[in-house]
Parts: sequence; C-alpha cells; structure tokens
Amino acid sequence: MKMANPETNSHPFYQSVRQNVTRLNQCLCIGLDPDPKKLPSGYSQTVAGVEAFLNDIISITKHHCVAYKPNISFFEALGLDGLHVLERVMKRIPSHVPTVLDAKRGDIGNTSAMQARYIFDYFGASATTVHPYMGGDSVLPFIEHRDRYTFILALTSNVGARDIEKLALADGRPLYSAVVDQCLTWHSIAQNVGLVVGATQDEMAKIRKQTPDQLFLIPGVGAQGGDYHAVKTVGQNQDGLALINMSRGILYASPTKSDMESKILQIINAL
Amino acid sequence: MKMANPETNSHPFYQSVRQNVTRLNQCLCIGLDPDPKKLPSGYSQTVAGVEAFLNDIISITKHHCVAYKPNISFFEALGLDGLHVLERVMKRIPSHVPTVLDAKRGDIGNTSAMQARYIFDYFGASATTVHPYMGGDSVLPFIEHRDRYTFILALTSNVGARDIEKLALADGRPLYSAVVDQCLTWHSIAQNVGLVVGATQDEMAKIRKQTPDQLFLIPGVGAQGGDYHAVKTVGQNQDGLALINMSRGILYASPTKSDMESKILQIINAL
Repeated sequence: MKMANPETNSHPFYQSVRQNVTRLNQCLCIGLDPDPKKLPSGYSQTVAGVEAFLNDIISITKHHCVAYKPNISFFEALGLDGLHVLERVMKRIPSHVPTVLDAKRGDIGNTSAMQARYIFDYFGASATTVHPYMGGDSVLPFIEHRDRYTFILALTSNVGARDIEKLALADGRPLYSAVVDQCLTWHSIAQNVGLVVGATQDEMAKIRKQTPDQLFLIPGVGAQGGDYHAVKTVGQNQDGLALINMSRGILYASPTKSDMESKILQIINAL
Repeated sequence: MKMANPETNSHPFYQSVRQNVTRLNQCLCIGLDPDPKKLPSGYSQTVAGVEAFLNDIISITKHHCVAYKPNISFFEALGLDGLHVLERVMKRIPSHVPTVLDAKRGDIGNTSAMQARYIFDYFGASATTVHPYMGGDSVLPFIEHRDRYTFILALTSNVGARDIEKLALADGRPLYSAVVDQCLTWHSIAQNVGLVVGATQDEMAKIRKQTPDQLFLIPGVGAQGGDYHAVKTVGQNQDGLALINMSRGILYASPTKSDMESKILQIINAL
C-alpha cells in the first residue's frame, strides 16, 4: 500500500474507508446480494431464511471487511417483506463499517431528491450508486447529502458496457472518459463523489491515470477472488484505497451453514 | 390524428394504449407523484392522506386518461409505508388503464432481472422506465418480460440532458441518437420497447424522424398543459399514439378537495 496522505479527503465516508483499509490491510467490500435459492443448507429458502443468513454473514465478517454493499434490487425481488429485511439488516451493520446501498438511481432533480431521501435518510446508507445518463441536476440531489458518498457509474463490468459507455466521442475519447471528467467536477463541490469502475475492464488503468485520487467502487471480482490483487494494484488511489466488491464468492463460500464461518474467513485471510 | 395501421404493433400494452387514445381522442398519461405537502386541503398530510388522495384521483380520472405513471421514488420517499400504499394503488387501477411504473432502473443482467421481477411481477406494472447507460444486457431482462413494455431513457427534459445525453459522438450525432438506434434493435426482439423523450426538447422532431413508429413517453409537460398540443403534434407516432405525461398539473389542479373533480375534468376536457 502506498503512503496515505491525510490531507487528501476529510469526508467521513472516505475517512472510514481509510481507517478500515489501514486496520485490515485489504480493500474488501462485501456485497449483500441475497438469493434464497443459493442459501447454504441449514437456512430455509425464505425471506426469514435470508434474514437469518445475512445476520450470520454480518456477525462473521463485520471485523474483516472495509464496507458492505447491500444490493437493494435483491431485497426488492422478495417484495416489501424483503425491504423490511433490508431495513433491519442496515441497522444491524455496526457503525464502523460504512454501507454502500447499491441502488443505481438517478432521475430529474426533484425525483432524485426523493431517491436520496429513501436511500440516505430512510435506510441510513453511508453511500449509494447513481446512473450518470441524465446529467448534473440528476446527480446533485445525492451529492447535496454532503455527509454521504455517491458513486457514479463510469465503466461497468458487463458486456453491455460496449453499447453506450464505450462509444467514441467527437474528441476521440470513449464516453465513460467524459463521465469521469463530469464526476471530477461534481466531486469538487463537496468531495463526496466516487466512481464505479468494472473489474474486468482493461481500461481501469486509464481511468486511474485520469483521476489519481477518486475512490473506485470495483464490482465484478470473480467468485474465486482470483483477480483481487491485480485489481487492487491497478484500482487503488494514491492513498492506497479502493472498495473491491465480492458478493457470491463470500456469501456462498460454503454449501452448508456449519462450516460457513471457516470457509469465509479462509477466503478473506487469503486477500 | 393520423390513421391507425392495425398491423404496426400487436403488443398488448401498445394495443391498450391505442384503444384508450382512440376512445378518448387524447394522449394523457397521468403521473402519480404524490407529495404529502402538496395535497389539497381536506386531505391529511400523511401517508394515509396520500392514499385517500390517490384513490380519489383514480376514481375521478380512470375513464379520462390513457395510462397512469406512478413514480416509485415518490412512494419510496415515504418509506416502506409509502410502498405499501403503492402496492394497493396499483391494484386499484382498473385493468383497462395500463400502468407505467416509473422506476428508472438498470444494472448488470442478474440484477436487472431482480428489478424486473419487482416492478412487473410484484407490483404488476404494465410498463417501466430504464436507463440505457449499462447497455444491452442491462436492458434485456426487462424486455424478456414480453407481455410488458420497457421505455428507455433517450433524451430527458431536464437541463442536465446536455451533460451526457447530448455529447457529440465521433460520427457527429449526439449520444441520444445512438441510444435511439440501440432501442430500435432492442425493440426488434419482442416489439416492446418505447422511448422517453423530454417535452422541452426541440430535438423531439428529429427523434420522431429517426423512428416514425416507436411509442414515446413524454414527461415534462407544464403544469398548465400549455404545450400539450404542440408536443402531441411532434411526438405522436405514425399510429397517432403517444403518452404525454402530466403530474402536478392534474394532481394539484385544485387547492381544495371539494372542487378537485371539477378542476381536474376541466383541464382534461380542454386537451
């Protein structure tokens, strides 16, 4: 890890990430994407089973990860009962572990303000994710929650990234590069904007060069965690920080409840 | 209205829109964006007040509009109690009025599948709205609900549209024009893709020329409905169809509950 410069960003979310990365000497963000069908044996494949499972996941991992990233869509897919589980899970996450409530929102200003209220005020998330497509006034209501952090989708890890995100602009750059520039402008307002940058993309190094100090939220690290170290080397900022997300590789590390803790800690300790 | 060609699109949502437009001879989509602070006097400024208000709005307008567009973010801003209201409101809308549950989602494929399940299966929406930024595999899980309709954000009505949507591509076109082309490809799969095109944009005519038959969902028509007719002339497709959304101009037409019905019907009858 490079030497941290304490002057880079005094934002509470950033500082919380910094403290956890320094303490743990890794950049693991655990994605909470519960799917009843994938629960280890020992949990019922129900909404109640999901809640029991996530409570155990948090108990096992709360001192071993930099952040949690609950994906709201996985709770929504369970209906409002699932969102009630999310509400309780958010309260169960200890305050030293910041939460990125992955919601990928963004709308015209007054609607984005409603979305930000739901995610930041109702669920109490430390951070969220937002689509850049609708531009500045769709993003600003999130940024105006100055004590929270907003990660803008820059370059994602899915194959569809080529359809829009990588289109060549008139100045020769790909679209995502212009999005990164916009994010730098938005970040300058309250130092609370990060970037979602897909782990499977060679372009991560180029984006890192374009912005040495933005915090990256990096999804798409494989279930085996094989490319965690490669991604960390490329994706960490000048303070040595990144949020490298693993979901399935941690959550479903064991097919049975009984050895879930040992399997998960084995994976985390290898990071 | 131009002559309708019955062969254009046999999709059930499209046919439902066509029947309502033909019967009513207008293209009004009523946006259900409830804000407790704006309710007419006579309703309590609470979640219960919102529900009573929306029930009355639906009773008043259900035979006078082509579609409803509940904006999920306005319900989310009220917390899970608000989403329970949405659930009941969706069931209250009669089956002859299709619903566009405006949610502006889009994520990697397996997550988009969760989002589609929530919007289409849980809430039973006839249609929804999706961000194009993450490309084909983020949009396809919505389109795969073949009996539902998916409106992709093309060019929105907010000032931030210039930040990303209007960026010039290497081929000289603005980005949104490439998004429209992508939508035509996605539409060819199951004839269930429409476009969100902002009412305040001069570019609507150009997009109409690029795609004479796509159905437009047109937000941003002013509270006075002043540009409804101009928008209809430009925005309707070759079958004379469009969904022209009005929210505040209908919902808050009267400051008091007692003359709400007469004020709302007065506005609608002038369309």
